[in-house]
Amino acid sequence: MKEIYLDNSATTKVSRKAAEKAVEIMTVCYGNPSSLHSKGLEAQHEMDKARKITAAALGAAPEEVYFTSGGTEGNNTAVFGAAHALKRRGNRIVTTALEHSSVMEAMQQLEKEGFEVVYLSPDSSRKIRSEDISSAITKDTILVSIMAVNNEVGSIQPIESVHKAIIAAGSPALFHVDAVQAFMKIPIKPKKYGIDLMTVSGHKIHAPKGVGALYVRKGVRILPLHFGGLQEKKLRPGTEPIASVCAMGAAIEEAESISAKTEYIKKLNVLCRNRLSEIDGVIINSHEDCLPYIINFSVPGLRSETMLHFLAERGIYVSSGSACAKGHKSHVLTALGLSDERIDSAVRISFSDENTEEDIDIFIKQLEIGIGTLARKR
Amino acid sequence: MKEIYLDNSATTKVSRKAAEKAVEIMTVCYGNPSSLHSKGLEAQHEMDKARKITAAALGAAPEEVYFTSGGTEGNNTAVFGAAHALKRRGNRIVTTALEHSSVMEAMQQLEKEGFEVVYLSPDSSRKIRSEDISSAITKDTILVSIMAVNNEVGSIQPIESVHKAIIAAGSPALFHVDAVQAFMKIPIKPKKYGIDLMTVSGHKIHAPKGVGALYVRKGVRILPLHFGGLQEKKLRPGTEPIASVCAMGAAIEEAESISAKTEYIKKLNVLCRNRLSEIDGVIINSHEDCLPYIINFSVPGLRSETMLHFLAERGIYVSSGSACAKGHKSHVLTALGLSDERIDSAVRISFSDENTEEDIDIFIKQLEIGIGTLARKR
Repeated sequence: MKEIYLDNSATTKVSRKAAEKAVEIMTVCYGNPSSLHSKGLEAQHEMDKARKITAAALGAAPEEVYFTSGGTEGNNTAVFGAAHALKRRGNRIVTTALEHSSVMEAMQQLEKEGFEVVYLSPDSSRKIRSEDISSAITKDTILVSIMAVNNEVGSIQPIESVHKAIIAAGSPALFHVDAVQAFMKIPIKPKKYGIDLMTVSGHKIHAPKGVGALYVRKGVRILPLHFGGLQEKKLRPGTEPIASVCAMGAAIEEAESISAKTEYIKKLNVLCRNRLSEIDGVIINSHEDCLPYIINFSVPGLRSETMLHFLAERGIYVSSGSACAKGHKSHVLTALGLSDERIDSAVRISFSDENTEEDIDIFIKQLEIGIGTLARKR
Repeated sequence: MKEIYLDNSATTKVSRKAAEKAVEIMTVCYGNPSSLHSKGLEAQHEMDKARKITAAALGAAPEEVYFTSGGTEGNNTAVFGAAHALKRRGNRIVTTALEHSSVMEAMQQLEKEGFEVVYLSPDSSRKIRSEDISSAITKDTILVSIMAVNNEVGSIQPIESVHKAIIAAGSPALFHVDAVQAFMKIPIKPKKYGIDLMTVSGHKIHAPKGVGALYVRKGVRILPLHFGGLQEKKLRPGTEPIASVCAMGAAIEEAESISAKTEYIKKLNVLCRNRLSEIDGVIINSHEDCLPYIINFSVPGLRSETMLHFLAERGIYVSSGSACAKGHKSHVLTALGLSDERIDSAVRISFSDENTEEDIDIFIKQLEIGIGTLARKR
């Protein structure tokens, strides 16, 4: 049975080159980057290379890139670090109801600490309105945190309008973008959008799980979450996950140009959407202008988990929402105002460039069989 | 030139089996452990195996093991998590002047928050006195954090006396042990010593950098440092570094019995100490009852870095102290009351079972040449 992995927004297979790089670091260049001898310097040099590659992908300077243990730590560091660093300048934080749990729960924590957090809701296009962002940002707003691409439906948020709104409001706010789902899929150069802090993760782009990076614009100072050694200029002390860091560098380098990849994924997306829209009882939840990597749809009446398991038994891997929520009711789909029936039957598929048109074909056929079989069972 | 790596307390080479396991997870069993489909369950199953192996090594239950991104995060989570969870029950924390920077700097942070932190000093045996621990613990002490083995000189601390002292004082304190240098080297079963929280790390035992575990005794509740998904029962949300987690499992499994390994390392230690003591101008800073894996010595008059580079040019890798301190003056050697001359010339060598008697022989010869050559240059 051919394995058809359509859950690339949950995580990806590590590429051959990335895995090889990890092995080289683990077994040959295994020094501690903080060690003063040549074995340490060699490791430090490998980290520097990975940092330059990551920086180049972000249009940033290497010293603006801080390696982290992944997206959750990156988001937590940005959100807590910014709020705590600026707490004397204001008390208000603006975010959205669509954020990943690692931003959402950090915000709820900040509310407990006394911060006022505004959660903007999307309109029917699955997006936050630029006007809503502008009017939410006040003079005492110290942080605006908005994801670039939503992980469940793929909607692209209007991050281009935030910086202007901060300036217009005369606000001292730092601007954080969770770009975990966007990184290497749409070109986001933080400088272009006036972004101060931006989170990316390795394991969504064929690097190992347990590594990511936080972009911190030069001159921006946030407080650390961790305390200890001198690593990552003390913003993230602790021996670096260097095998994964360098594997992430390899994965970034290996990725073809974003535009070429996107064209390919768009073709898969259009094919898949067309086939889905021909199936009776399927409602597509992702709009056409979403990130082409993600399609969310519902089959009202058929529970997500039932369909997910039916497909998995046939070697096809899809998701019922965010992996991090492990089957709990999606706060994102709720915020989008979908009916309970649509939420309970939502399925997310997410592509990588390893997927083929044949994969889509097999998936659609099995989905149709699933709908027929499972609907009869009810 | 044969590479002689004598800096295993800074980090170790990843073992072949651990690296192979990491590759298997990265490229075959690459699902997200939180995904509900079989590809996710397969990954979860691999994590469960690694958790069982780690738990068995600690004499703990699998549900008492929480995977972390490494020693610094483990220590930070334990220290902040315990202090913040118990802050209503008291304000006093007892620790030592010998701790790793990831405990030390967390403590300094807690002092800024208003906690009273007592830093116990060692006596001439390089150890904290049990009596000092007992008299420092009061009724309003909420946390005692003491390392099992010091990372710079290898002294073994009297953790066996702490639990009794906490009970005797009628204190609600949680007992945390930084066991990063002790794990798999001396048998420490947390239950035996009444330890509530214990930090271990992968990269000191031939697993990759970027993974560790925190033992949290069943029934003990500490507050998390990170917020987000449901991973690690919400104590450590974020997609797990599963390749490294499973590699750590493999490294633990692969390790021979602790006692057999220790016997071998003791032989190397005795050989090396004897040879060192025959060299004019060498003073050994580690006492004989230290962990045999570590020998710290000084060559007064010859700066550590000079010797370190001399040896590195000859393929011999040693350390001038903690890698995390990157050549800054050692707070540990200062706390031990050593003279500036001895601190400035301190060299740490640390063994693994890959080292041989021949390694020691070559090291000693080059050290002697170094002392001769560098002394003449002055």
